[in-house]
Amino acid sequence: MLERFLVPEKDRVYIKFENISEATTQIFKKMGLSNQDAELSTKVLLTSDLRGCETHGVSNMLRKYVSDYGSDDMNPNPNISITRETDVTANIDGDEALGLHVLPKAMDLAIEKSEKHGTGTVVVHNSRHIGMLAYYSMMPIKNDMIGLCITAGNAMSMVPTFASKMRFATNPWSYAVPAGDMPDFVFDVATTQVAGNKLSLASRVNAPIEPGWISDSDGTPIMKEMLLPENSNDLGQQMMLPMGGTREQSSHKGYGFAAVAEILCDILSGMTAGFLMPSHPRGIMSHFVQAIRIDAFSEVTNFKKNMDDMLRGLVETPPAPGQDKVIYPGLPEHNEVNKRMKEGIPYHFEVINWFESIKNELGLDYDLQN
Amino acid sequence: MLERFLVPEKDRVYIKFENISEATTQIFKKMGLSNQDAELSTKVLLTSDLRGCETHGVSNMLRKYVSDYGSDDMNPNPNISITRETDVTANIDGDEALGLHVLPKAMDLAIEKSEKHGTGTVVVHNSRHIGMLAYYSMMPIKNDMIGLCITAGNAMSMVPTFASKMRFATNPWSYAVPAGDMPDFVFDVATTQVAGNKLSLASRVNAPIEPGWISDSDGTPIMKEMLLPENSNDLGQQMMLPMGGTREQSSHKGYGFAAVAEILCDILSGMTAGFLMPSHPRGIMSHFVQAIRIDAFSEVTNFKKNMDDMLRGLVETPPAPGQDKVIYPGLPEHNEVNKRMKEGIPYHFEVINWFESIKNELGLDYDLQN
Repeated sequence: MLERFLVPEKDRVYIKFENISEATTQIFKKMGLSNQDAELSTKVLLTSDLRGCETHGVSNMLRKYVSDYGSDDMNPNPNISITRETDVTANIDGDEALGLHVLPKAMDLAIEKSEKHGTGTVVVHNSRHIGMLAYYSMMPIKNDMIGLCITAGNAMSMVPTFASKMRFATNPWSYAVPAGDMPDFVFDVATTQVAGNKLSLASRVNAPIEPGWISDSDGTPIMKEMLLPENSNDLGQQMMLPMGGTREQSSHKGYGFAAVAEILCDILSGMTAGFLMPSHPRGIMSHFVQAIRIDAFSEVTNFKKNMDDMLRGLVETPPAPGQDKVIYPGLPEHNEVNKRMKEGIPYHFEVINWFESIKNELGLDYDLQN
Repeated sequence: MLERFLVPEKDRVYIKFENISEATTQIFKKMGLSNQDAELSTKVLLTSDLRGCETHGVSNMLRKYVSDYGSDDMNPNPNISITRETDVTANIDGDEALGLHVLPKAMDLAIEKSEKHGTGTVVVHNSRHIGMLAYYSMMPIKNDMIGLCITAGNAMSMVPTFASKMRFATNPWSYAVPAGDMPDFVFDVATTQVAGNKLSLASRVNAPIEPGWISDSDGTPIMKEMLLPENSNDLGQQMMLPMGGTREQSSHKGYGFAAVAEILCDILSGMTAGFLMPSHPRGIMSHFVQAIRIDAFSEVTNFKKNMDDMLRGLVETPPAPGQDKVIYPGLPEHNEVNKRMKEGIPYHFEVINWFESIKNELGLDYDLQN
C-alpha cells in the first residue's frame, strides 16, 4: 500500500490478533451466524488485517456488515445451493448472504474438482461482499494449485474510459501461486486506480489523492493532486477512474479487465450487469473462482523451483534511482503478517472506539486490551 | 488504437483482402510450411490487419518471420506433441515452431475438452510468436464459449515497478465473449503501456509517445511527451513501463498481470521465467489458452441477452465532455473488419514495397494490385 494510506503513528492502537479475532467472532455470532460461519468470516477479515490490507479488514467493513444484519434483511443462515454443475464447473446460489462465508465453500468445491480433473471453476450469484479476494485465491495453494478469484456487482464506482457515468464496481482480480522457499506470489488488485475502501481511508487519514484517480461529476478525469472532495456526484458517490486513469495511460485496459470481471461473475452466473440491476441498499455481488492444479500441466517441484528463481530474480533486480528495492505481489504482505503476529495489528483509535461501543450495545464481553 | 498510430493518409496503399492473403500464403509456403499451416498462419495475420490491428499483421511481423525461417533454424514442419494431459488440461511441446500455426491446434484441443466437461485449459511450451492474441481467444465463440489467451516469453521489454532492468515481455492477455445481436466483446491488451509493435509503428509514422510509456536506461520513467528515442538502453532496446506507467498510476497492477502471464505460460508449462532463459535470437515463447463453456454455468440465451444489454448500455452511456462516444473492446474492430473487407486494407507504402521485393527474391507470382 502507498505510505499515505497507513494509519498515522499517533492515531494507532495495537491490538493482539487473538483479541481482535475473538471480538469479531463474538460480533458475527451475535448477528446470528453459526459458529462455523462466524469463525470463517472472522478469518477472512483478519487475514486482511494481518496482511496490512486494513482497507478490507474490520476497520471499514465490520460496522457495515453489522448495519446490514441489523436492518434485518441480510440472512445470517442462508440456504446455499448448487444450481448447475459439471465435473469441473458449478454455479452456486448464495441466497443473498454475506460472501465472507459463502465463497470459501465455492473455492472448496473448485479445489475438489481440480483434485480430480486438473481444474475447477465455480461461479456464485446472489451473493454479497467478500472482503479481501486474496483469502480465496490463496486457499488452493496448500494443494499445489494456482488460485484465481474475481468479483463484480452493483455497487457502482468505475467510470469507463470516455464515459460520464459509473458502469462497474471496482471489480477486483486476485491470483495466488505457490512458490518453494520464497514467500508465495499473491496478486490482488482493483481494476479502478485504487480500491474503493482506500478512498475512505485517504479521507480518514487526510491523505491527498493523485491525478487521474477520480473524475468530476461529468466524467472528466481530475488531473491534479488534491484532498478527496466529499463526493464526485450529487448521489454522494466518488466516480473512480479505471486503472491507468486516462486513455493515454491505458485506462481502456483497466476498463476492459473490469468488463471481463463483470462477464465472468455477473453474466456467466446468470445475472444481468451490475449497472442494470435494480438498485439495492447493500449491493448484490457475484464471484468467479478457479483452482488450477499444477501437476495437471507440469512437475510441481520444477514449477516451485522456477517460481523461486523468478521471484528471487525480481527481488534482486537493482532498483531505479530513488527507489528502495524491487518487490513482488505477496512479499510485503508476507512480511507484514510476521510483524503483526508479533507486535499486534495497528488500528485507528476510532475503530477501537467503535468496537468498545458496539460491545456495550450488543452486550458482548470481549477484552481487546488484555 | 490511438489516432497517432494510424498510417498517414498520404502514405497509404489500399490492398484487397484476397490479394494480400494470397501473397502471404505464397510466402509461408515458400518458407516450407504445409499448405494447411501456411493458410492458418495467413489467417491469423490477416485477421489482425482486418481488425485494424496492423501492429500485429503482415506489416511488422511477416518480414521478421521470413528472416527467422531464412536463418534456417525455425522449423516449418515441427513435431508438435502433448507432454502431459488430463481430461480438461494439456501441455503441448511446440517444437520451437512459429506459434501462428501451433496455437490454433492448442485452442482446438481446449474447445474439445470444454465441449465434454465445461472447461478446457491448454498450455504450450517451446513455441514462438503468435501474432494477435484475439485470433485465438475468438476461436471458442462459435461454440458458445468464452476464450482466453495469454502469452509470455523471453523477448524482454517491461521494466517492473521500481526496477532498473527489463524482466518481462509485453505479456499480453485476451478475452473474447460471445454476445447476441451486438458485436462480440473482444479484449486484447499488452500489460505494458503500449504493445511493443506500437513503438515501431510510432517510429515509422513519426508520432510522439506519451509520458509514462517508457523508461530511461536506468529505469527512471520518462515523464514528458516526446518523439521515441532510438533506444532506451545500449543493447538497442526500448525499456517499456507496465500499464499505468508509475506506481501512483497503478503500474504495479500492470506489472502484476505481466507476472501472472509469466507464471501461467512459461512456468506452468515447465519452463523458467523469460528473463532467466538463455538469450535466444528470436525468443522462445509459451502460451496459455482456456475455453469456458457458457452452458456449464448458466443458460446461453439468457447469457447473450445479458451481454447485449451490458454492451448496449455501455455504448449508450453519455460521453464525458470532449469525448465522442463510449466504446467497448471489440466494437471498433468489428466495424473496421466490415470497412476493410469493402475498401481494402490500408498499408504503408514501405510494406507494399517489401512485398514486391520479396516476391522477386523468392520467385513468387502474386499480384497485389489486381
